Amino acid sequence: MRPQEIIAKKRDGGHLNEAEIDAFIEGVTDGSWADYQITALIMAMFINELDFAEQSLITRAMLYSGEILEFPESDHPIADKHSTGGVGDKTSLIIAPLAAACGMAVPMISGRGLAHTGGTLDKLESIPGYDVSLSVGKLKDTVAACGFAMSGQTKQIAPADKKIYALRDATATVPTIPLIVASIMSKKLAEGLDALVLDVKTGNGATMTEIDRSRRLANEMVKTGKAFNVDTRAFITDMSQPLGQYVGNALEVYECIKLMKGEGSDHMDRSLQLSKELVSQMIVLAGIAPDHESAFLKLEEALSSGRAFEKFVMNVELQGGDTSVCDDPEALIDGSLERRDIVASRAGFVSEIDTLGIGNTVSEIGGGRTRTKDKIDPKVGYSHEAGIGTRVKAGDKLGSVFCRKPSDAEFAVEKLTAAYTIGENFVERPDLVLEIIK
Amino acid sequence: MRPQEIIAKKRDGGHLNEAEIDAFIEGVTDGSWADYQITALIMAMFINELDFAEQSLITRAMLYSGEILEFPESDHPIADKHSTGGVGDKTSLIIAPLAAACGMAVPMISGRGLAHTGGTLDKLESIPGYDVSLSVGKLKDTVAACGFAMSGQTKQIAPADKKIYALRDATATVPTIPLIVASIMSKKLAEGLDALVLDVKTGNGATMTEIDRSRRLANEMVKTGKAFNVDTRAFITDMSQPLGQYVGNALEVYECIKLMKGEGSDHMDRSLQLSKELVSQMIVLAGIAPDHESAFLKLEEALSSGRAFEKFVMNVELQGGDTSVCDDPEALIDGSLERRDIVASRAGFVSEIDTLGIGNTVSEIGGGRTRTKDKIDPKVGYSHEAGIGTRVKAGDKLGSVFCRKPSDAEFAVEKLTAAYTIGENFVERPDLVLEIIK
Repeated sequence: MRPQEIIAKKRDGGHLNEAEIDAFIEGVTDGSWADYQITALIMAMFINELDFAEQSLITRAMLYSGEILEFPESDHPIADKHSTGGVGDKTSLIIAPLAAACGMAVPMISGRGLAHTGGTLDKLESIPGYDVSLSVGKLKDTVAACGFAMSGQTKQIAPADKKIYALRDATATVPTIPLIVASIMSKKLAEGLDALVLDVKTGNGATMTEIDRSRRLANEMVKTGKAFNVDTRAFITDMSQPLGQYVGNALEVYECIKLMKGEGSDHMDRSLQLSKELVSQMIVLAGIAPDHESAFLKLEEALSSGRAFEKFVMNVELQGGDTSVCDDPEALIDGSLERRDIVASRAGFVSEIDTLGIGNTVSEIGGGRTRTKDKIDPKVGYSHEAGIGTRVKAGDKLGSVFCRKPSDAEFAVEKLTAAYTIGENFVERPDLVLEIIK
Repeated sequence: MRPQEIIAKKRDGGHLNEAEIDAFIEGVTDGSWADYQITALIMAMFINELDFAEQSLITRAMLYSGEILEFPESDHPIADKHSTGGVGDKTSLIIAPLAAACGMAVPMISGRGLAHTGGTLDKLESIPGYDVSLSVGKLKDTVAACGFAMSGQTKQIAPADKKIYALRDATATVPTIPLIVASIMSKKLAEGLDALVLDVKTGNGATMTEIDRSRRLANEMVKTGKAFNVDTRAFITDMSQPLGQYVGNALEVYECIKLMKGEGSDHMDRSLQLSKELVSQMIVLAGIAPDHESAFLKLEEALSSGRAFEKFVMNVELQGGDTSVCDDPEALIDGSLERRDIVASRAGFVSEIDTLGIGNTVSEIGGGRTRTKDKIDPKVGYSHEAGIGTRVKAGDKLGSVFCRKPSDAEFAVEKLTAAYTIGENFVERPDLVLEIIK
């Protein structure tokens, strides 16, 4: 089948069948389709959309373009969590060790940050020596040894997705639900899971800003997970403000370590709360506890006993990281940075936060990347200390920014101050978990 | 402006402005846009279409991506003809010398054949030694010396179009009117013309099979020509059967030489008739004669006096071709080929001809190419001898095919026999010129 025939069919709004989708993904994997043919078809898929059958066929073909992990010797259910990404969204670093401490095996394959959203791999790399490029063998060994591993997408896992995602990023074809579903689910299904919990963010700091689209994405992913016999649930959670306190790679690792050690600040609260909610769901789905009440007992014990944090320390050691940051997390905060407070210009209630603006500002002062090849500065970032609903007086501190260059500080203070809207009337704090899709 | 922003705008159905279209075409020309970004935008343009303003902006940007020919010393009006392509459509080889003999300068830039349609350059290359890759300088010198030149698109002429066309061909994005208009018109306007006559084919052997689409294309091209101050007319002509007698590169050159020498067969009639109609229009548009009656007198004299053919011979010599084929055109017919007749299976009238099928068959026996890199066999082809409306008896000859391999002959005879529908009732011969768009 010539690429042109398949492209023309989708171009004209047709529905691609199994043979056509397999030919496409095989062509991507073996290089017989040129990049410019791939992007032409992807744009036709973007505009003319894909139905559920096509979406599932692409997911399956991308999944089988690479290796599927198997854990035949594991006594533990295999489970994972995936988030669609947001600002300050750092729960993976708590969830993986916590789930492991509760008896699950978690082979977590994560991504890097792009644009305003952070990425788990970038965060982990702020721990000196931490290796996020594990081979499949090393990944399995690490899971066996400490209950979880955190790695980037290897060449063996869904290679077709990796290539297609990079091309979508360069051609403005990322934000389309069927391809998002196929990209996320092909990688997650390649982990050989028994249970999967998805965290679909919604609000002005999320990839999907509208709840309708977040809900549609969540539904499609749950349907797809079930079609592949993986027990799947999706949370729709608030991203109308940064999650927890810190935004920035090393600062977010600091937050997670403090929380796991039981030394978290009030500002960090929602990071821990959401981690618990998601792990509780994983526990029940994986059949480790019969209901959420007993699941919460289990995870609270794993936290308070220090077992979850022990798993984290073991993992840092196994993946080559410097465990001294676990003993002394303050080392993750770079004292030489220019630190500036953001203050309220008037009295009232924080009524709205430009979460995208905060994410972009941290990215622009070096904490993120606008192109995949950009280098990041792991230490810069923002401490967000006044969530929606907070009552403030003029001059009260809303947060503080950590910059490498004084010139960045001017810019950042202006942008971050503008990110907070302060109104006269009392505003309710938004719920953290908005919906759970089964 | 990042490519992604421009792509996203068209993806969402927006209208691109001048700065955006210029950025795109500059990016194509200087290589800063990757091929996969170009094809993503092209697919979005295909599906979401372009309005007249965008179409004209792309035409202009592609035109100015390269050199524009100028003929400051020419005493002759600069004119050209362009055809959208068909089966057996060989009129360029007659029109260029005939127009030159009537006092025009014709800098004809042509293309190669693809799929079922032939290409002027391939036909000319069946004359041993004939060089179709002229530099701009050589092209101008040739026009100055004999009144016309025939060449492929040089690197200097509309380079953006050249790159985009090759990518469109590989990504099923050729058949969209705005990009066809921009591609044809940017090249033709680069010839620095005073007058342009377009031959838009319609019917089952044309690129546009439906007359409505052919008419739309013709209208858009005429509007575009006028917007760039070139007097432009478009003919809509019949392509529901091969034009004239032969289909195949050397065979078509043979037909043109025979016609210019006044030795043509009856089967060749419509090739000559259409060439005359188009040249007559060029003569009037270029202001060489006031009306078609006097234009016809002029061109008939140029033919019967042998002056048109002399121009052709001069051109072959100037472009490095072997002029012996002009004296002895029979040398273009390869006697060693397997020659088989196609015959009528029943008595009646030829009511329909699968022109696309004939074009594809000639292509498949080696006379054309399915990929741009395929080599062609210049000698193979088909002699079409029973047009629509011809009365036949069972066993009457409909045509004959010239194959390199006996195995091809079996296949070709079957396909070509099936291309003719013979019905019981009398059928009118279709008009040659269906409409003229001013």
